[in-house]
Amino acid sequence: MDVRETKTQQSPALERGARILDVVARSKTFLSLSDLSRELNIARSSVHSLCQTLVNLELLIRRNDQTFQLGPHVMRWSNAFTLQSDVATEFAAIWDQETGLPGATITLTVQDGAEVVYIAARNAARSRSSLEFRVGMRLPAVFTATGKAFLSHMPDHEIRRLYAQGLPAPRTGRSVRTIDDLLAELRIIRHQGYSCDEEQVAEGMVCFGATVLDAQNRPIAGVAVSLTLDAEAMSDRNTVIDNVKQMATRLSHRMGADLPANDQMRGG
Amino acid sequence: MDVRETKTQQSPALERGARILDVVARSKTFLSLSDLSRELNIARSSVHSLCQTLVNLELLIRRNDQTFQLGPHVMRWSNAFTLQSDVATEFAAIWDQETGLPGATITLTVQDGAEVVYIAARNAARSRSSLEFRVGMRLPAVFTATGKAFLSHMPDHEIRRLYAQGLPAPRTGRSVRTIDDLLAELRIIRHQGYSCDEEQVAEGMVCFGATVLDAQNRPIAGVAVSLTLDAEAMSDRNTVIDNVKQMATRLSHRMGADLPANDQMRGG
Repeated sequence: MDVRETKTQQSPALERGARILDVVARSKTFLSLSDLSRELNIARSSVHSLCQTLVNLELLIRRNDQTFQLGPHVMRWSNAFTLQSDVATEFAAIWDQETGLPGATITLTVQDGAEVVYIAARNAARSRSSLEFRVGMRLPAVFTATGKAFLSHMPDHEIRRLYAQGLPAPRTGRSVRTIDDLLAELRIIRHQGYSCDEEQVAEGMVCFGATVLDAQNRPIAGVAVSLTLDAEAMSDRNTVIDNVKQMATRLSHRMGADLPANDQMRGG
Repeated sequence: MDVRETKTQQSPALERGARILDVVARSKTFLSLSDLSRELNIARSSVHSLCQTLVNLELLIRRNDQTFQLGPHVMRWSNAFTLQSDVATEFAAIWDQETGLPGATITLTVQDGAEVVYIAARNAARSRSSLEFRVGMRLPAVFTATGKAFLSHMPDHEIRRLYAQGLPAPRTGRSVRTIDDLLAELRIIRHQGYSCDEEQVAEGMVCFGATVLDAQNRPIAGVAVSLTLDAEAMSDRNTVIDNVKQMATRLSHRMGADLPANDQMRGG
């Protein structure tokens, strides 16, 4: 076994290998050694040796026309990533960093048909909210911020099918009551990229929500910030909304979602 | 940009980086630098620099306790792999290598409920079979070799639900006629790892089948070899069966399935 020390502090060969896989992954056509050499500005002989190693590792496959495509070995890593990565754990790791919202309640939900299920909640220390969120609690999706965010990913005809028997009984005087009003709300959510529940779940409580996406850009969780109306009056609404969107974006990136570069928040 | 030439013909840093990801992917616990150094028999300083690069590339994540888990960047590659890899294309690439079966018809199917759909077929040059397989053709899953192989992945209660209205009308005197006979056949298939249609689709035709698995070990396609009874009498049945199983294993490996090492056939 080769146990020589590498002299470089960083590993340029490893970086280049990863860049080759990135270029092959992004390309609309299958690339040759010359294409890769040109694209990466790396000498052809160097690309040749890196590609040979990647083929041996089954990270690349050499096609009959001497171009390359990704190899099956990458699936080992993605399967393991999916097993090791858990949105609730990541949520717990970031919520303490959200120092911008000291008085807020932050919750994480998953969708289960017409309901959302709370899988994590950090309730504000001295909450005067009329509602305490507990893990395992269920609420109708139509009234909650995360539920509305989930529903905004569904086409209108699926929403109509889901609520073919009508919407659930209203919880407050402001709960949405008709499919048409719900669909109008969802259109706004799709446009704005966040959702809002203004006293639809409980009187005196306002929530802002957004969805967490997985590597296939499917919504796998919802994150929301809940404020009592008096706290909301004191804080800057745009700051709260930015914070919710940032949490959702960071969690999505962490779960492997392929977001546009300007949407991505790197950790730290 | 760094365009120095690497001197090594193979790239040891790249190989080691891939081995680190493999070890992290396989481990039941999260590993530290010392664990990785010991496991891979690579000096700790070298592992340190490789891991730093992998963290920068978001292929690894450094956890709060200084252990590592896989990072979200691996999902870029697996998504691209899935888009670039197509079982029908791979099937076309290997069938010409199956020189062991010159007189046989080889087919590839997908399951659609209680039917199989033929997505590729190499019909024997001078087929005397009573059935010519065409792409797009559908047959009842219960009678075909690939269909039986697909059904063998389903639990018995799902089979009973799928055929709650009874089995389709028999095609020959030997077509399976009852759920109980079908379930008995499926038990044998699960045990043997291949399926057999002896004149259940067409008189005078025998087929052997097996399933192709994807990276989540789900059956995504079925491969079968069909022989006329006289050809079957002349050939060695075990050779044909081995050939079908090998084709299915090679295609599964190519599609990213995580098969036991002794099941894997490397290409070439």
